[in-house]
Amino acid sequence: MTGPVFDTAFRDALEQLLTWRRDVRHFQTRPLPDGLLDSLIEIACRGPSVGNAQPWRFVRIVSPERRAALIASVDAHKHAAGEPYCGDRKALYARLKLHGLREAPEIVAVFCDAETEAGHGLGRATMPETLCWSVVTAVHTLWLAARAHGVGLGWVSIIDPASMNALIDVPAHWRFVALLCLGYPERESETPELVRHGWQDRLPFETTRLER
Amino acid sequence: MTGPVFDTAFRDALEQLLTWRRDVRHFQTRPLPDGLLDSLIEIACRGPSVGNAQPWRFVRIVSPERRAALIASVDAHKHAAGEPYCGDRKALYARLKLHGLREAPEIVAVFCDAETEAGHGLGRATMPETLCWSVVTAVHTLWLAARAHGVGLGWVSIIDPASMNALIDVPAHWRFVALLCLGYPERESETPELVRHGWQDRLPFETTRLER
Repeated sequence: MTGPVFDTAFRDALEQLLTWRRDVRHFQTRPLPDGLLDSLIEIACRGPSVGNAQPWRFVRIVSPERRAALIASVDAHKHAAGEPYCGDRKALYARLKLHGLREAPEIVAVFCDAETEAGHGLGRATMPETLCWSVVTAVHTLWLAARAHGVGLGWVSIIDPASMNALIDVPAHWRFVALLCLGYPERESETPELVRHGWQDRLPFETTRLER
Repeated sequence: MTGPVFDTAFRDALEQLLTWRRDVRHFQTRPLPDGLLDSLIEIACRGPSVGNAQPWRFVRIVSPERRAALIASVDAHKHAAGEPYCGDRKALYARLKLHGLREAPEIVAVFCDAETEAGHGLGRATMPETLCWSVVTAVHTLWLAARAHGVGLGWVSIIDPASMNALIDVPAHWRFVALLCLGYPERESETPELVRHGWQDRLPFETTRLER
């Protein structure tokens, strides 16, 4: 079997996609086209998973009451997580917008089915955390597929993961991984918002690449 | 600032990339072109990270002694991890090739700098594991960028993570995430090897997508 050959034009565009991906916190409220979210989730399910366990569980939040409860929870945690900062950084933290849960037309909670029998345990005898990591790559796949449609994604992580199963009404043995906002971004940028606001610059390549 | 607009042709090719990605265990021994690995790692560094912490540390393994030690370790763990299987599944497990550490022209170990000050803790007050997950998305970015160049990647996870820092000679506080084989694949397929060998089929979409 011969696979597709990707040319320079595709690789350049892929690099653009990765460069302009962004974690989006500023969304337009206009809805996504019918069916788009499901087709993005289907593509996300082609992400790699340890032992082919496919432990990802995507939950589209449709209840306005659930959305309100999520907003209240994240806002409270954002406030608490800001306590340790001092001075200029505290002021900068207060100005950062960390989620678009109010505006984004779609919210998706993502879990890992930690007791799935799929995959028969293959590949995770010594590193059980790879099951959860498979869900992380599925989220990243969703992110890239969305961006290719002009749709932005924001990953909200300032939340109490233990409270999410009850709030979203999913089995207790599922492990919460991510709360995602999806929608058309208010603006585009090739520079991360945290770089633009002076929170954290890019690191030099030498820091991240070694030889042994 | 206006970002790039991705057209249907690009989206189709991206879907092909995701569909044909594969976890590769059968490699040709011919080397990668000079500089390609570094440019793939540079692209991987554009992956998302919590608080823009960029905690990924990529270590290219150049020492033949280190490669031999890694092979010995993974082979021993592969054997031990097969103990619990019985009957047909045990026989199938024994036949599965789980790594290409001998043949692959490049081996890269990936760690998470768990004590990095970059990012100033942002976004991980309630879910510290998101730091490590940032490294997972960087590995996935590397995977896709490699595949766009026709280069396959295999993620080896049957290894004792605690032994890796000494074996590879990196700081003790770095957390081991992945051992990667990279090279041109011996064959291409749009079907995961574990599906082809009858280990684990794809799950139905209804299992992985819910509404609440």
